[in-house]
Amino acid sequence: MQKVFVTGAAGFIGSNVVDRLLDEGCTVVGWDDFSTGQEDFVRQALKSEQFELKRGDNLELENLAKAMAGCDFVFHFAANADVRFGLQHPKKDLEQNTIATFNVLEAMRQNNIKRLAFSSTGSVYGEASVIPTPEDAPFPIQTSLYAASKLAGEGLIQAYCEGFGFEAYIFRFVSILGERYNHGHVFDFYKQLLANPDRLKVLGDGRQRKSYLYVQDCVSAMLHAIDLTTAEQAKHRCEVYNLGVNDYCSVRDSISWICDFLGLNPELELTGGDRGWVGDNPFIFLDTTKVRGTGWEPKLSIREAVIRTVAWLKENQWVFDKR
Amino acid sequence: MQKVFVTGAAGFIGSNVVDRLLDEGCTVVGWDDFSTGQEDFVRQALKSEQFELKRGDNLELENLAKAMAGCDFVFHFAANADVRFGLQHPKKDLEQNTIATFNVLEAMRQNNIKRLAFSSTGSVYGEASVIPTPEDAPFPIQTSLYAASKLAGEGLIQAYCEGFGFEAYIFRFVSILGERYNHGHVFDFYKQLLANPDRLKVLGDGRQRKSYLYVQDCVSAMLHAIDLTTAEQAKHRCEVYNLGVNDYCSVRDSISWICDFLGLNPELELTGGDRGWVGDNPFIFLDTTKVRGTGWEPKLSIREAVIRTVAWLKENQWVFDKR
Repeated sequence: MQKVFVTGAAGFIGSNVVDRLLDEGCTVVGWDDFSTGQEDFVRQALKSEQFELKRGDNLELENLAKAMAGCDFVFHFAANADVRFGLQHPKKDLEQNTIATFNVLEAMRQNNIKRLAFSSTGSVYGEASVIPTPEDAPFPIQTSLYAASKLAGEGLIQAYCEGFGFEAYIFRFVSILGERYNHGHVFDFYKQLLANPDRLKVLGDGRQRKSYLYVQDCVSAMLHAIDLTTAEQAKHRCEVYNLGVNDYCSVRDSISWICDFLGLNPELELTGGDRGWVGDNPFIFLDTTKVRGTGWEPKLSIREAVIRTVAWLKENQWVFDKR
Repeated sequence: MQKVFVTGAAGFIGSNVVDRLLDEGCTVVGWDDFSTGQEDFVRQALKSEQFELKRGDNLELENLAKAMAGCDFVFHFAANADVRFGLQHPKKDLEQNTIATFNVLEAMRQNNIKRLAFSSTGSVYGEASVIPTPEDAPFPIQTSLYAASKLAGEGLIQAYCEGFGFEAYIFRFVSILGERYNHGHVFDFYKQLLANPDRLKVLGDGRQRKSYLYVQDCVSAMLHAIDLTTAEQAKHRCEVYNLGVNDYCSVRDSISWICDFLGLNPELELTGGDRGWVGDNPFIFLDTTKVRGTGWEPKLSIREAVIRTVAWLKENQWVFDKR
């Protein structure tokens, strides 16, 4: 089994990947700057002798390269995931998503590590003209700094594959839900309902259609696409996969599932308009034919994923104090 | 008429744009760090009272923002254009193309300037599956750090259009030829023939097919797409245009035109393989239907552009000592 380096190891998706990799028998080096990562999310992993946690910043290339030494494979998940607030601090996406990805690639090159998985986003399709949107959809126009910075990361990775013989797996996620979920609209809605169970402010008209994927299904999909069992030589290739379920729901749907589960019936205060914020995409639904070709199928529906998320938030209300 | 800021004003394409803008009656502020720009290329412009030249580096945001004050429109042409050598210094494309473009956008935002033209490249299509390649070709995989860094610039610009109401014109160029051309294969071939007229080393098998555009046609195309006559409010939009002719040639074709013009008959030494270097694209041919819709037509064929370039190089051999 491989020795795997995970950036963003204490984050929502990263920490779930770490736990699964340990279950599968990998040795894992976790890397996080704990700007949004949570100690609690790696508590389980730290009980394993196969896990080592290192603190550091992706913008410090020298430390990053040192931490990565001896690993065979890199999952690069560390990112600024504040999609909505890009316009308030445009440099954050550039630094934490684009430049950080460049540093990860350079650190790999210094260590002669050539295999990589990257968490990109379905937002790189902008307002897609083809829905459900396949990986080879028409060349998009970017609509958010977040997606632009992830697209820039994709391009860098692809150029390293071509130029330096890297083997990369780029995953374009829909919104991910599940255990350790700690930002996004379900988080925001629950937080509001904790403060006032009778009223819920919703950005936009609530008719925005989005797709979601349960985090354990997300991790399974990645491990279906990547072979971690052999320490084989890197194959020069770059694969892009959409990750999501064959379905979508409206914001109103998810509100009704959340409220049913919590036994609440708040009055909705809709801010209006067909999108929640500048750069919000009113309809995201990805074609996941390619990843299904690996034999992977999601186990949870969107509704089940929403409910599982709310149940986890209910048991872990401490996360609301941490953001 | 507009007051126009031109980055890379002393470069090949930038200086030709400056001269044309002055002819059209614009006031122009030229900006260049003279890392590859040439004093000689702005000599004509400096005779105009409508032109001001400022020296500075796009990586120094504060100076850039100060220099840009009072302008209405920005042509952002400064770039690392060393396509072939990206793998020798991967950070150069990131800094000079991606981060520099971010700084130009931030400097514009600080000055409340919202209209922009950007020189991107047909290389962003990677090895295109559709040829001739339209602007909305299938979502590409990047094959060079140069193209990846330009794609990142495109994405940033698009996100600024969506987020900050910018109006942008992104031009994806084929290779540009003509007066002040000072890098690329015609340059390299002529330089070799000056040193030894009997022998010419050619990267690849010489069958690579490329498209070219004469620099004056390139400038005309941009000015057809952009309206500089009125100081109108920026319209929130982002237009992407391919720029090129409806034709392509092989490297062997261009060698025969160069040699015929110079009266030489060198022995070709082909390094072999279907591409000149890692990341080279063996067939570039863009669909230019969209820009032709503005009423623009190129005046010179590829052959005429090659010959005009060689004639200019013959009269300006000093450029060979400058690189």
